[in-house]
Amino acid sequence: MDEINLQRQSSTNDELVLIEEFFAQLTKPKNLDSIRDKAREFCQRNSHLKIALVTSGGTTIPIELNTVRFVDNFSAGTRGSASTEYLLKTEQYAVIFLFRHKSLEPFWRHFSSDELFSHLDVNPETNQVTVCPSFQPKLKEVISEQKKSENRLLKITFTTLSEYLFTLRELTMVLNELGSKAMLYLAAAVSDFYIPPENLAIHKIQSSEPLRLHFELVPKVLRPLVKFWVPDAFVISFKLETDENILLLKARNALKRYGHKLVIANELNTRKHKVTLVTEIDSESIQINSQNDEIEIEQLIVANVVERHNQFIHDQSSR
Amino acid sequence: MDEINLQRQSSTNDELVLIEEFFAQLTKPKNLDSIRDKAREFCQRNSHLKIALVTSGGTTIPIELNTVRFVDNFSAGTRGSASTEYLLKTEQYAVIFLFRHKSLEPFWRHFSSDELFSHLDVNPETNQVTVCPSFQPKLKEVISEQKKSENRLLKITFTTLSEYLFTLRELTMVLNELGSKAMLYLAAAVSDFYIPPENLAIHKIQSSEPLRLHFELVPKVLRPLVKFWVPDAFVISFKLETDENILLLKARNALKRYGHKLVIANELNTRKHKVTLVTEIDSESIQINSQNDEIEIEQLIVANVVERHNQFIHDQSSR
Repeated sequence: MDEINLQRQSSTNDELVLIEEFFAQLTKPKNLDSIRDKAREFCQRNSHLKIALVTSGGTTIPIELNTVRFVDNFSAGTRGSASTEYLLKTEQYAVIFLFRHKSLEPFWRHFSSDELFSHLDVNPETNQVTVCPSFQPKLKEVISEQKKSENRLLKITFTTLSEYLFTLRELTMVLNELGSKAMLYLAAAVSDFYIPPENLAIHKIQSSEPLRLHFELVPKVLRPLVKFWVPDAFVISFKLETDENILLLKARNALKRYGHKLVIANELNTRKHKVTLVTEIDSESIQINSQNDEIEIEQLIVANVVERHNQFIHDQSSR
Repeated sequence: MDEINLQRQSSTNDELVLIEEFFAQLTKPKNLDSIRDKAREFCQRNSHLKIALVTSGGTTIPIELNTVRFVDNFSAGTRGSASTEYLLKTEQYAVIFLFRHKSLEPFWRHFSSDELFSHLDVNPETNQVTVCPSFQPKLKEVISEQKKSENRLLKITFTTLSEYLFTLRELTMVLNELGSKAMLYLAAAVSDFYIPPENLAIHKIQSSEPLRLHFELVPKVLRPLVKFWVPDAFVISFKLETDENILLLKARNALKRYGHKLVIANELNTRKHKVTLVTEIDSESIQINSQNDEIEIEQLIVANVVERHNQFIHDQSSR
């Protein structure tokens, strides 16, 4: 090995050691083995399809070990759940949906439970619970769509940052076997900050005086993910800002730093009708009329990224 | 007015000024008038009954004005939603249920939406959505109970600490007209800390360096609530700690400080099978076998507090 290669090797090792050290201080979820087994079985069963891993919803970071309080990231899970639904509708994908417990889910997202329950009634003649006639058409449409794709959807939940990161890493081990057929669509709102467990209060913090909290930066796992965990997959990340002026710059920087294929950039207040797809060489905006509720922007995003993924697979295979 | 009364008057005014100043810096929800009107109409329509205000679920505190991140209090809303259900079942109460958006609700709490959706199917013969036979008995029971009491339940949601506090204060103006017939069952997990709006970051905080956050104490609104807003009502507060050793002491201190009638004290890990009802003069524990899933502890808590409330009404009227 020449000197440059030796240097590269050593900086790679340093990076891997750092990320391992970060994971080592987090609480490892107990069900990782079972998640990996389920994901592997799912990918094998759907080996005739492309596989997408869609992450969705926000992660929490506890501020006490016996957790009463936590910091959360705003996200209802609309982007991830809607995109999963459109990916399934293409019939080209099986989707692993890694989502925040209780956040929106594909298909069921169309109804609040209140809406659903208020349309159930006990029929006095048959003494059976029935669905109101007025609610039948919409419900029937959604259930039919859901049944069509239920074998192509694997749902896995997380709540805390630790659960999210460990599960994501575990799933990449399975996805890496699929090469360029795997797409990672990382729409979850992952915390940038955390309190290292050794600095956490053990009990509920008492409210006798003002509170100062000190958060450390979460290392960007997107870098080891792209470089080491799934180097052959098509990786898409999302960038949400509230300040439009810094959005594109941050998206470009992310591509340079992490070396993945595509950043979908969006601004908090306009995210439902405008996104910009940023690659290393260009950017493309997708916009819908904000008054229009006939079409969801996720349908257009998915159509666009599916095409990009196909091109990516083609490019890889012809190398 | 003699000197002692003058002093009292002036300390009362100071307290009111302080709490007004605190409210003045918070963001006032826009729908307060409509909430008050609905609540008043609800109380008039149910004037033959006692009225309970049950608060439930955790409040959030934003850490950015354009909020991407917030601190949340852990609470699924089990205590409040289950207690509301049992209060309604007594048929003696109409309940205003002030709950965190998306937290558990009375009746529907028995099913996750996943569970419900997975038991719906399109019948190929009738082409109608039907409920699976296996799921009929449980669903029928819950829906029948829900229908019985739907006119006695008013649901109002909150998310942030500001929304919770403003709405609570607004509702007490309506409840105060009912004297001792009103019961306040304050089971919501309300944040003890907040970041004053003038100290909030305007945009999403950038993740280029570690983050220090400084929280101020939220003034205890229980004190003005008991002293000024609903002085004649039966007020119950909850105390949750993770450290059992300080729990009873803190409950007693709360009673002394706020002057209300009852604290229901519980410890995070045992809260589903043990609570202690603490008054100024005694304490009473309610415990169920933790293996027993036939009975919920809220049923026993409600039976106990209903009796205490009746005694309270009787004592007040015979004064």
